Amino acid sequence: MPEAVRIGLLGHGTVGGAFAELVRERAGAVEAATGRRPEVGGVLTRSGGDFAEILAASDLIVELIGGTEPAREHLLAALRAGKPVVTANKQLLAQHGDELFAAAREAGVQLRFEAAVAGVIPIIRVIQESFGVTEVSKVFGIVNGTTNFILSEMAATGAAYEDTLRRAQELGYAEADPTEDVNGADAAAKMAILARLAFHTAVTLEQVSFEGIERVQPDDLAYAKELGLSLKLLGVAERRDGGISVRVFPCFLYSGHPLAPVSGPFNAVMVEAPAITEVTMSGPGAGGVQTASAVLGDVVSIISGSSPVHEVREELAVVTDVTSSFYLHLEVADRPGVLAQVADVLGRNGISVKSVVQRGLGEDARLVMVMHECRESAFAAAVEEIARLDFMRSEPRSIRVIEEEFV
Amino acid sequence: MPEAVRIGLLGHGTVGGAFAELVRERAGAVEAATGRRPEVGGVLTRSGGDFAEILAASDLIVELIGGTEPAREHLLAALRAGKPVVTANKQLLAQHGDELFAAAREAGVQLRFEAAVAGVIPIIRVIQESFGVTEVSKVFGIVNGTTNFILSEMAATGAAYEDTLRRAQELGYAEADPTEDVNGADAAAKMAILARLAFHTAVTLEQVSFEGIERVQPDDLAYAKELGLSLKLLGVAERRDGGISVRVFPCFLYSGHPLAPVSGPFNAVMVEAPAITEVTMSGPGAGGVQTASAVLGDVVSIISGSSPVHEVREELAVVTDVTSSFYLHLEVADRPGVLAQVADVLGRNGISVKSVVQRGLGEDARLVMVMHECRESAFAAAVEEIARLDFMRSEPRSIRVIEEEFV
Repeated sequence: MPEAVRIGLLGHGTVGGAFAELVRERAGAVEAATGRRPEVGGVLTRSGGDFAEILAASDLIVELIGGTEPAREHLLAALRAGKPVVTANKQLLAQHGDELFAAAREAGVQLRFEAAVAGVIPIIRVIQESFGVTEVSKVFGIVNGTTNFILSEMAATGAAYEDTLRRAQELGYAEADPTEDVNGADAAAKMAILARLAFHTAVTLEQVSFEGIERVQPDDLAYAKELGLSLKLLGVAERRDGGISVRVFPCFLYSGHPLAPVSGPFNAVMVEAPAITEVTMSGPGAGGVQTASAVLGDVVSIISGSSPVHEVREELAVVTDVTSSFYLHLEVADRPGVLAQVADVLGRNGISVKSVVQRGLGEDARLVMVMHECRESAFAAAVEEIARLDFMRSEPRSIRVIEEEFV
Repeated sequence: MPEAVRIGLLGHGTVGGAFAELVRERAGAVEAATGRRPEVGGVLTRSGGDFAEILAASDLIVELIGGTEPAREHLLAALRAGKPVVTANKQLLAQHGDELFAAAREAGVQLRFEAAVAGVIPIIRVIQESFGVTEVSKVFGIVNGTTNFILSEMAATGAAYEDTLRRAQELGYAEADPTEDVNGADAAAKMAILARLAFHTAVTLEQVSFEGIERVQPDDLAYAKELGLSLKLLGVAERRDGGISVRVFPCFLYSGHPLAPVSGPFNAVMVEAPAITEVTMSGPGAGGVQTASAVLGDVVSIISGSSPVHEVREELAVVTDVTSSFYLHLEVADRPGVLAQVADVLGRNGISVKSVVQRGLGEDARLVMVMHECRESAFAAAVEEIARLDFMRSEPRSIRVIEEEFV
């Protein structure tokens, strides 16, 4: 049996704890995918653990401390010792990227950081690997979930900035000290990283200009609504005038823009290039489990080394009779009792109706209904029975409906 | 100097031609990223080239012939000869995936196929690599651009299916023989591939049930609008009842659904899992250049072998004075001539106004404007000048606006 991959974990807060838990939970899946089982060896916390000992005993280092020191020092030591590193530390990469990438290159080991930008959206992998040789013209989007939540709430409720920030803090979408989120500094660090990868050029945090959302007024949002606009805090990195521009600023978007519907604590990033036109990716901005999941993805990439080959790991039956919701369109004679008879057939087959539209059409009428979720075989039986009713003027038509509501 | 990577290209139609062109164009970028320069060696077309000779002379094979034979035979031969393969052939993978994956595994070489599913959206890489050990519960979306175009057009114009299909053919969004697109078979092949990767289980095309859009009536779409629904051809692969369900069917979505706004010849795929909540990816469905770009991404992954390290390849200046559009909010005394004076200042600074809302408020008025794109320094100068006008009641407020309209 091959030896386990020993992970040295620096930091055991919300994300660190979720990561340790996720490693235990998914160790079997990682082993199935890569042939090697991961386990968290040493853990460095503020109060315990010795970094040098942990480093010596680990095959790779996962850094979830945050802040620049001692994270920087530890990661440089790890890379120089030939140990691959996974980090979620955007400030560290934005401020000391040159030094860290150089250390990784010299040692010939991997430095991965998917969790540093845009939550669960795998934008780092996509930019580095899928679009690594694409002439990217622009990377932009919503890369801070706290501010997107605040702006969405202000637009929806008309409440003032300060009140909405307080609400975000109560809901856990904003930290006790929200400064770096609301003033744009957090988004600026992420954009420095994205610009570096997209344009293959050294970009540091000092080169990114940023504005926050602290001065946004409720009536700006009210007027914007009249003009068909929605407000987002955007990070934009693009080729401009023979160079690049990297900035963070609040910005209105027309309703047809792919980023306009992104509301609440979500992130979304668009990549534009002549060869791909555009790709948009969106998902939740953060959360301990989500961030831990992105970190684990990086760990798996390091363990597998080269690229994955598809393997059958499970034998799963293909189910055919599932539950669905349906739209049903009936053309019927316009006479009393029709709706009652249709409803009776549906009821006897255990199908409940969510909404109905009835419309007269000369001697005939149309009955359009949306059902709640039911077993497809039951729906088919009901439709067959309805088709035989004497007031039917044509074959019933049905189409499935997705009932889930998204925020 | 390291030797060039010789690519054996099977097929030289729209995509094959675009790929050969792209390799020439991006050879330098690939060399910068991987240390090795790619070049297309032999090309197999219907009328020329000898497969055995091309195989012997190539380091890797790119298959863009389409159809199952002779593509299947050639790719099995390539894999057995230890040559990595990149293909965009969804039918081949959906029908003969087991055989091809087994051959890749036995030979220990890569088989990549990003371009086979969802156009430029890198869904294969994301599912296999980012979410390779994630317990995916559902993968679903719009994976056929032709049908999405037809459904969007029918909803927008009220035209009949046959007329809209003809229009799609004229615009190049539907083929002369559109059968596989409109009956759902093309989407079914893609869903077989996605289900296989997401659930690590063998799925073949025969196990995927599919319905098309041929029977959709304009009045279904009209009623749907009344109910707040939009119609999409969805592919859905999900865990259900201890197994999986893989299907393609037309389906209504409520307007809040992330897939509801995806219109025209676009694709969009959502991945759901407890650890990530959900990630949505969207982009153009196809096109020769876009498909070629996805193929090149796979080729680069094969050449680089292991994972990328960020390298500085260009020295780019960070530009600060760029052009932008702006929203401008002014609180002014409500008297004649105010708008004229503001417009004069803007005009002298070369800034043109796109839209204006004026609203009285007791003795004061609010003037809210959106400008067309202008140099930021010119806008700042104009705002400074406006701020000094004697009718101003408070500091001007401005926010950037994205003017681009998306289809």
